[in-house]
This record gives sequence, structure tokens and C-alpha cells, in this order.
Amino acid sequence: MSFDSTIQAKAVSITRLSYEMTASSGSGHPTTCASLAHIVSVLMYQHMRYEPVNPSHPSSDRLVLSEGHAVPIVYAACADLGIHIGKDKTNLRAMTRDDAMTLREIDSVVDGHPNPAEGFPFFDTATGSLGQGLSHAAGLAVAAKIDGLDKRIFCIIGDGESREGQIWEAVDFIKDHALNAVCTIFNCNAYGQADKVSDQQSADTTVKKLQAAGYTVLAIDGHSPSAIQDALSQHAQAQFDPKAAPLAIVAKTQKGWGSASQQGQGHHGKPAVGDELKTAIEELETTGRSLGATADTPLKIGMMSPKKPERTQPQPVMSFNEAMQQFGLGDALTKGKYATRRAYGVALRALGLANQNVVSLDADVSNSTFADMFANDESLAERFIECRIAEQNMFSVAAGLSAGGKIPFASTFAKFVVRGYDQIEMAVNSGANIKVVGSHAGISLAADGPSQMSLPDIAWFRSFATMQRQNGTPGFYVLQPSDAYQAYALTLAMAEYDGPCYMRTLRPDTEFLYGENDTFTLGGHEVLTEGRDLLLVASGYMVHEANKALDDLDAQGIDATLVDLYSLPFDAEALLDLANENNGMILTLEDNYGGGIGSAVADAVAEDGGGFTVHQLHVKNLPKSGRSTDDVMNYCGVSAKHIVEKAMAMLELSAT
Amino acid sequence: MSFDSTIQAKAVSITRLSYEMTASSGSGHPTTCASLAHIVSVLMYQHMRYEPVNPSHPSSDRLVLSEGHAVPIVYAACADLGIHIGKDKTNLRAMTRDDAMTLREIDSVVDGHPNPAEGFPFFDTATGSLGQGLSHAAGLAVAAKIDGLDKRIFCIIGDGESREGQIWEAVDFIKDHALNAVCTIFNCNAYGQADKVSDQQSADTTVKKLQAAGYTVLAIDGHSPSAIQDALSQHAQAQFDPKAAPLAIVAKTQKGWGSASQQGQGHHGKPAVGDELKTAIEELETTGRSLGATADTPLKIGMMSPKKPERTQPQPVMSFNEAMQQFGLGDALTKGKYATRRAYGVALRALGLANQNVVSLDADVSNSTFADMFANDESLAERFIECRIAEQNMFSVAAGLSAGGKIPFASTFAKFVVRGYDQIEMAVNSGANIKVVGSHAGISLAADGPSQMSLPDIAWFRSFATMQRQNGTPGFYVLQPSDAYQAYALTLAMAEYDGPCYMRTLRPDTEFLYGENDTFTLGGHEVLTEGRDLLLVASGYMVHEANKALDDLDAQGIDATLVDLYSLPFDAEALLDLANENNGMILTLEDNYGGGIGSAVADAVAEDGGGFTVHQLHVKNLPKSGRSTDDVMNYCGVSAKHIVEKAMAMLELSAT
Repeated sequence: MSFDSTIQAKAVSITRLSYEMTASSGSGHPTTCASLAHIVSVLMYQHMRYEPVNPSHPSSDRLVLSEGHAVPIVYAACADLGIHIGKDKTNLRAMTRDDAMTLREIDSVVDGHPNPAEGFPFFDTATGSLGQGLSHAAGLAVAAKIDGLDKRIFCIIGDGESREGQIWEAVDFIKDHALNAVCTIFNCNAYGQADKVSDQQSADTTVKKLQAAGYTVLAIDGHSPSAIQDALSQHAQAQFDPKAAPLAIVAKTQKGWGSASQQGQGHHGKPAVGDELKTAIEELETTGRSLGATADTPLKIGMMSPKKPERTQPQPVMSFNEAMQQFGLGDALTKGKYATRRAYGVALRALGLANQNVVSLDADVSNSTFADMFANDESLAERFIECRIAEQNMFSVAAGLSAGGKIPFASTFAKFVVRGYDQIEMAVNSGANIKVVGSHAGISLAADGPSQMSLPDIAWFRSFATMQRQNGTPGFYVLQPSDAYQAYALTLAMAEYDGPCYMRTLRPDTEFLYGENDTFTLGGHEVLTEGRDLLLVASGYMVHEANKALDDLDAQGIDATLVDLYSLPFDAEALLDLANENNGMILTLEDNYGGGIGSAVADAVAEDGGGFTVHQLHVKNLPKSGRSTDDVMNYCGVSAKHIVEKAMAMLELSAT
Repeated sequence: MSFDSTIQAKAVSITRLSYEMTASSGSGHPTTCASLAHIVSVLMYQHMRYEPVNPSHPSSDRLVLSEGHAVPIVYAACADLGIHIGKDKTNLRAMTRDDAMTLREIDSVVDGHPNPAEGFPFFDTATGSLGQGLSHAAGLAVAAKIDGLDKRIFCIIGDGESREGQIWEAVDFIKDHALNAVCTIFNCNAYGQADKVSDQQSADTTVKKLQAAGYTVLAIDGHSPSAIQDALSQHAQAQFDPKAAPLAIVAKTQKGWGSASQQGQGHHGKPAVGDELKTAIEELETTGRSLGATADTPLKIGMMSPKKPERTQPQPVMSFNEAMQQFGLGDALTKGKYATRRAYGVALRALGLANQNVVSLDADVSNSTFADMFANDESLAERFIECRIAEQNMFSVAAGLSAGGKIPFASTFAKFVVRGYDQIEMAVNSGANIKVVGSHAGISLAADGPSQMSLPDIAWFRSFATMQRQNGTPGFYVLQPSDAYQAYALTLAMAEYDGPCYMRTLRPDTEFLYGENDTFTLGGHEVLTEGRDLLLVASGYMVHEANKALDDLDAQGIDATLVDLYSLPFDAEALLDLANENNGMILTLEDNYGGGIGSAVADAVAEDGGGFTVHQLHVKNLPKSGRSTDDVMNYCGVSAKHIVEKAMAMLELSAT
């Protein structure tokens, strides 16, 4: 049993270091670590195929630690194995025990939870907000499948966190797409934070649930090296068996394994210190000896295929008019209007044809978001990923696809994007390159009512536009195209840019405002009309309401400037120059609740201190269903009529 | 078979009206309606116990239509039965067929999706964003259990929407809490929007999943009146059997039942109009005749218990000092500091003792949020609801509890509240009275890193503070207490107020700034220091950083005013008066990304146009783990030192 004895020795050793690290940091979850000691040892010392010097090699097997708080046990193995770390990807260095002891220090890459963006490339995605890892793993597996790579993705899930519905969305997704490269491992240590886990999350019930979902399930002792190795080997064999179901391992483990004083309720997230630490380690060593722990056999990390995905260079993307003609939609061009959501579909398809890294995801509404234009092109169908009605999983799969080198565009109704905000934020933390596209944005969709309307979305995404990622780019670009040409161009711009973008598209057809030769950039804006009395700042549907208002304003003697502020963040200085040319009077227009572009403009104005005035027209009541867009715009006080009234009130004019 | 023939007649009749209504509105989902024709007929004409004239009676059986887009079929039955509707709850009137034909009109209470706040009291909660209804039903059942009511709650779930993980969170929750009053009905019509549903959501797989979760499952033909009635009767019998498992009905149905031309792919959400409508209705009538549809038997809505929940009047709540003494925490008072999250726990317990309507929910972190102070009081334990690690379900359960007359306080880490934003927004739409409490807010928790830090939360909740509910109150009050006395007082204020509130609490102990005699109100703020050079506006942890900065500012010759802006919305005029007394110079301080109180102040300043200057100090980079709060405050540029630097730069001073 030399493999067993050696794994036992490694298990003791990395558990011990986990105790020491968390004692040093004064926080962390050593008992959760202990429950994973053998699974992590077998995976990282023997079973996984990867290069310690190049831990993010695209062909290497991947480990997604969904229960991110258990990360010290992985750090401990990394320190022992000298796995390379470092914030500068071009200059990594072998991790040491000293590195491990810097856990959670402010200048350490050894962060509190898995955090590739902080310099730990062994992980692909940031985890720690629970229930997301299996979806990341699924995204990595989809990318590998598209690229023809044989890598496997191991995902470790806590029993407590498996209460999160997203885990079960991912379970279904993996089955739907036959992503047998994912090896799903449930760590059933029976304890959550406040209490034991529910019987609904017991190992036995988890086995039944997975079987009901069509999985092959192996229930094992999670502290038996040979049982772990056997189960993992079964997964390796099943990976390419077209008849095999996805495989899951349900491992019964002990929280605080090895140290009796650390077991039972009350030890979650509490490092042992002082005498308690000493006792825990003594018990651990004794346990190891009783199990014959001896590092008497060399372990060998698996050999991975050196193959890297072959990718052709992206080609230039055709123009909107060309795409419309080529896709048989030329007639629509002559009508003078076209919905931005449709233009998104056209752009996505044109992009897909030009760039093989572009993938499309949708949540059962591709015929509303028009992602189906991509899906229905036979040459692209392999890169369309139907996620069904499960948005949390979709956005985390997108994060996994990004980690796998893809450029994922994930679309659903803007209202339903909120379902994945936590997942999207974790993707930002991961440094992911995701494109989020919300259709039927704002209130212009009208008939379906507020359960389908995105109203605080701009406020939320804008919050990320006020901060910067490690490379100095915004946490999010927020894009609100008003016409089809702009939507097309911005979709292309999103693909060219490496970072998170949110684009809002509209249900109704909107008139063309732009043409083939107009260019749009992330961070840009467009002056549509130049006046001198008042600066109207709008985006998306509100640009059209503003346009409707211009004639009436003119009749009332108001010569207004209209800016299409289609991007956040934007060039504040340029906007304030325009305000200066308009008496310092600004009226912002939004079809959502406050905190959006109105506040963005107010932020700039207030920081400037130059005495500009900003009034904000936005939705200030709960919308409801209306049969027409105009009905709802009126109901919510943001129609052309309201713009005129507000403008006149600002300028202290009365109607003529 | 006279019951059968009568139900068939009702099914035809309400399906027909569903076609007519959706044709009239030009949008809607008639084929989904048709798939529910028999289930809704049996429930509403025969099985449910309720009073059409008083459709929200607290003892009546309830129907939660989780797949809200099928609502016309319920409206059609309501119109036929004369169920009372109206926006003014004190002056309802019987619904008519004419009302039904106003579906989705802007001035109609017959909204596009179930919407009690718009005047449809037959429903308790707004649905339409999918996957939430079963959690609402569970919340209603918890409330009924606490109140000793024997009502039953029927929840209809679409097969497509059952892909949402939240459904399975609710399935586990119902089992955990033995909420056998909930009758879970899956409508398996096999079609989603863009495609057929996945095999993972087939009736057969759904049966297996429910059985794995420990349910008794009845698989039935959803168009067989007697099979439906039998299954519902089995549920009635099992409701009070302590040995019974929760019961679910998995009904195979046909999308577009009765009208062959409306079946198969491509009919989701598309009303039939013109000839297509004529054909659909002719087919429907023919189907009815072939099934012997004849309304030859009087149906009778069940008799409900007239019992209403007995509730004692809330008693005055003891003061913070009294509560601390009474709960054996008096020593902490002498230390001069106490974490706001702890004060929340103290307040929640004191509130619970004084007001039997107060309930507490938590997601496996009650020993971090300190909701466990409520849970661990034996006299309150029945009103503590452990939701495990499943935040989406928790917030929707809270919405259901509110509909059941309770005052739910739902707590978890502020970071994980985002998991339920969609659910919280739907609760606002429902008119719910929910209290959301997010602990470990901002970056002061330090060690755990960004996966546990709430950073865009204030921006999102503030968006609701910019709009008003139907009764003129804000969509949300956003509360950020800085000390324990304030946290205690604001918790009590939340309970007294009928409407949505979000309170952020902090991990670290913070110094006492206030005392027993200070009063705090929703919408209030507090002037802590009066100066004349610069107005510092802070809340929560940043009040303490600002306090630290005051001495240094003084040393640099800056006499600053410090306002604790603990509430959004706030009294903008009063704040601008303070700015006027401080040279019009304002510096806002936040431990989150932008879009929060800084933007709120900027909004007020920019609208005023008086030339004030607002600089915002907030988190502008991705945080990471640090061992101390100070480390992370420094890393993110929002420490006392940064406040001083920023203030000096604003006032164009250089360090002395």
C-alpha cells in the first residue's frame, strides 16, 4: 500500500500546513481543508496532468475549487510542489512554504479565496461566492470540446453549498451537453457554517439526486487514497465513451479530519491558534502514524498533451449593410428602422464567421434576443450554447469559457440578467472577458409589464464603470445603442476589447440615426444636434423620444443640443464643454430607475463644481403593462411630452 | 361523468377567453394557458377554498402561478367567477369579461403578469420572472403554520422554468420544514420558448428528481379532470399527516391543448389573431364537444375556515441598553464599541419578543449576521427560518411571508444578498414588506477578500431609492448604521415601517458614537461635527475613518463638518444647507464602488445648480484580502490618510 501510505503522508503534511497558514493569517477554514486532504493529494500529486511551471497551460487538466474557502489545502500542495505563481504572467516563480505563510496578507498573491487575477494561475476563475464552480468547470469543458483538447476538469463542491440551485442548473447543463470531461466531486463533510447540513444535502440524498439527473455516481470514502484514485480513473475511462453518462463522485469526508479536537459543530472558519493549534497538529500526526503515513513512494503528476488549441487569426468583419445583404435581410434596410436586438443578432453572426473564438450563449430566449441568428447558422451552431432558463449557470459558464480562451456573448432579457449579477461580479474578479447582452431593456417593451423590465440595471453596471480592473480598464463598459448601425458597431467593438461589457438592446424597431461610416467606440458619445440653450443627454430608446421632443422644444423657443451618450464611462470633459455651450443646463433622459446616466453626468458636474444644473428625467414609479410603448412611456413620465415640459420648467419658460 | 364534462366545458370556455384576451392585447401566451385549462378549472371552480368577494382572505387557499405568463387562463376563470378586483382594497368589485378584455391596457388592473400591487388580490405576489413562485408558496405556508391556519397553497410551475435552480432550492426548503400545505404542481407541456424543454426537465426526469428529494410524486394526465381532482384530494389528506412527505403533482399537458393548429414549436408567446384565432377557437370547441364538454353540474368552490390569525398588538421594544443587560451582554457596553451586526442581532431578538409578526430568516450564516440571537431564544425559535445556503429562495420566501402578514428580516452577508436581487425586485413589485440585512458589508471585513465583499450593493439599492411605490414611499430605504445604538434603532424603525428596507451591517466592532437618547429615522442624517471649510459626508464604517481624519484635518487648518448620512433617500435641502455653511465643498466617503451616497449627493447638488463641488472617495480598484481592515482601507485608497489628502487637494492646500 505504498501509494496509500504516501498519500496519507501528503494529506497529513498539507493539512498541517493549512492549520499553520490559517493560524498565521488569523482567519480561514482549516477544518474544511482537512476534509479535502486526500482528494486534493490524489488529484494534485498524482492524478491531474499539468506542469507546475506553467499552471495555466491550456491543455492541462484544471481544478475548480467551488468551495473556495478550502483554498489553503490547495495552496499547501502548491507550496510543496513548487507550482508557479506571480502577478506578472510572464515572470512566474515557484511557490514556497514562506509564500503559503503569507496567506491573506495585503501584498501576497496567496489570497483568501481562489483568485487568478491576483496572481494564482493554477486557478482559472475566482470562487468563494458559493455554488458557481461547477458552472465554471462546465464552461472550461465546452471550450475544450470546441478546441478538441482532451483535458479534464475536476470540480470540488461542498455539501453545504450544493444547496445553491445553481449547482443543479450546472448538473443539468453538463448532462445536456454531454460534458463528460467534467469530473464533479461532492465533498460531503456534513457540516455547514451555522449548523450541520440538511438531510437534503446528505451524501445519500445527493447520490439519489445525481442519479435522477442521469449521472453515474460513485459514492466513496473521501479519505481512502485508493478509493479516490479508482473513482478518478473511472472518470478518465468514461470521458470519451460516447455512451457514458456524466460521472460524479460523492465523497463522504470528515470536517477536521485527523484532529479529533477540531471535529463536530463550531469549528467552521475558525483557525486553531496557540495550544489549540498544537493539539490539532499533534492529533493529526498521530492519525497519520496510525494510518501508516510514510512518503515512501515517488508520486508523479500526469503527463498532459502538449497540444495547444489551433486558432486562426480573426478576419475583418463585414459591414452592417453587407451582413444584412448576405443574410438575406437587405429589405429591412429600406424600411429605415430596425430593432437594436436584431442588429445584435446580425453582428453576432457576422462576428462568429470572422472570429472562431466568439461563442454565443442564451437562456431559452434566443428568438427574442436574436442570438438565434448565430445559432441557426450551421457553420456556427457548434459554438452556440443553449443554457435553458438558468441564467446563473449561463453567466458562470461564460466565465469558464473566457478562462478557456473564448469570447463569450451571453444574452437574455436585460431583466433576467440580474439573476446572474453575483456570477457576473465574480467573473469581473476573475479578470474574465465576458460580454453580457440584455434585450428588451427598460420600459419600451411595454406589454409584458415590470416582471420583464430592467430598471435598476444601469445603476448596477455603472457602479463597475466607476472602478478599474488591475490593468486600468473599467470594471464594465455599459453600452446603450439607440439604432441598429450603432448596435452592430458596438457588438464588434465589444469583441475587439478584452474585458467585461454590458450592452442593452431594445424590443421595438427604432429609426436609423447613423450609417455605415459612423464609428463608435467604448467610452464614446455622439452629438446628434447642436443647440445653445439646453443639453439633452440620452441613450438607447430615449434618444428617439428626445428626437421627437426637439421640434416641440424649437416651437417653444428652446434650441437644444442632443447627445447620444451610448457609453459609460464617457469623456466627462467633452460633455462639460457641451454643457458650457448650452448655458450649463443639462437634462438627462432614461427609461430606467435613477442611478444611471443621470447620476453619471451629475457625478461629473458635481466634481467640476462649475455651477452646471442637471435635471434627471427617469422612471420614478413602478411601471405596469401597457399595450403600446407610448402608453408606458407616458405612464412613467418619460415621453417626448414630458421632456418638453421638464425642459421648459428648467429654463423657467411657460408654454406658448 | 358530470364533473368531468363540466370541467371540460369550463376548460374550453376559459381557454377560449384566453385566446380572445391575448388577441385583444396583441401579446401574451395563450398556448401556455391552454395547457393549464383543466388544472386551473379544477382548482378554481371546485377544489380551492376561498371567497370570490374577498380573494385575499388570510384563511383562504392560495394559488401561486409561478409561470406568470400563463395568467390569462386565471383571469378568464376570475372573470367567469366574478372574483373581486380593484386597486382600492377597500372597494373591490367583481371582475367581468369586459375587464378580461382589457388585458395589458395601461389603465387596467388586468396586468401582463400576476401583479397584486396593481389591483389583483387573488394573487399574493408578483410573478413573471421565472422560478420564484414555489418559494413564495413556501413563505405563505410558513406564515400559515405560525398562525395555525389550515389553508393550502397551490403552486403551478412550468417545466421550462423548473430549470431554474431556485425551484430546487424551494423543493429542499419545503422538505426541510415539512411544509405539506404546499401542493407543488409541475405543468409539463414539453415546450419552452426557443425550443422543446430539455430531457432534464421532462415529466419523467422531474418525477425522479422529486422522488430523490424525498417527495411523494403523483404523475398524472393534466387534462383529466378526475385525475387532477384525485391528486389534489390526496394532497388534502396528506397535509396534516405528520408521517407524510411533501406531495408534488407532475402533470403531463399539451401546449395549445384543444387546438391542433396551435400545437408544437413556434407558438410560445404568440397570440392567434384573425383567421388563425378563428381556427384555434373552432378546433377548441370541436375538441370540447368530442370530450362531452357540457356544464351540466353545479361546481362549488370549497368552504374555507373563517378563522383569521390571532395577533396580539406589538408591545414597546426595550432600549438597547436594556436589551444588552437583559440578554446578558451588559459587559460589552462598557467597552465602548460593538459591531453593528451584533447590535442587529440584539435588536432582532428584542423586536421578536415585542412583536409576534417579526420573523427572521438566514442562509447558514446566522452566527455571522447574529440572527442567531433570535434563533437561540427558545421563545422565538419557531419564528426563525433556516434557509441554508440558498439566497434566492430565502428572499422569495420572505416575500411570501410578507404576503402572509409577517414582517420578515432576511439576513446574510451583503455580498450574497446580490444572489437574490431579482427576487427582491419582484418583492418590491409585489408591494412586499421585506427587510433585507446584509452583514460584513463593504471592504472592512478585509481578510476574506473580494468574493465576500459587497461593492456595488449601494448603487443597486439606491436605484430603488430614486423611485416611489404606488403609495408614494421609496422603492427602498437604504440604511448604513455606523454604531451599535444606531443599528439597534434603525432595526426597530424598519419593523415599524411598512415597506422594503436594506440595512448594511459591519464585521468589525465600531466605537459608540451615539447613545440611548439619540433618535434615528428612515430618511434621516446626523451632524456629528460642525465646521466651516468642508462638508464630509459618510456612513457606516467610513464615519469612523472620517472621525480619525478630523484631527489631522484640523492640524492642516481644515475645519470640517462631518455628517453621518445613514439613510437614502435623505433630506437633500438640509444637506445643501450644510454645504452652504462649508464653502460649498463636499467630500463623500464610501467603502464600496461608486454610484452610492456620493452619486446621491451629486444628484442633489447637480439638480440644485448652485455651484457646489462634490468629490467622491470610494473604492476604485478591485479589493483583495488583507489581514487587517486598515490594510484593505489603505489598499483601496479610502483610509483616514486618503481622506486628509483628498480634502487638502480639494481646498488646494499643501501639507504643513
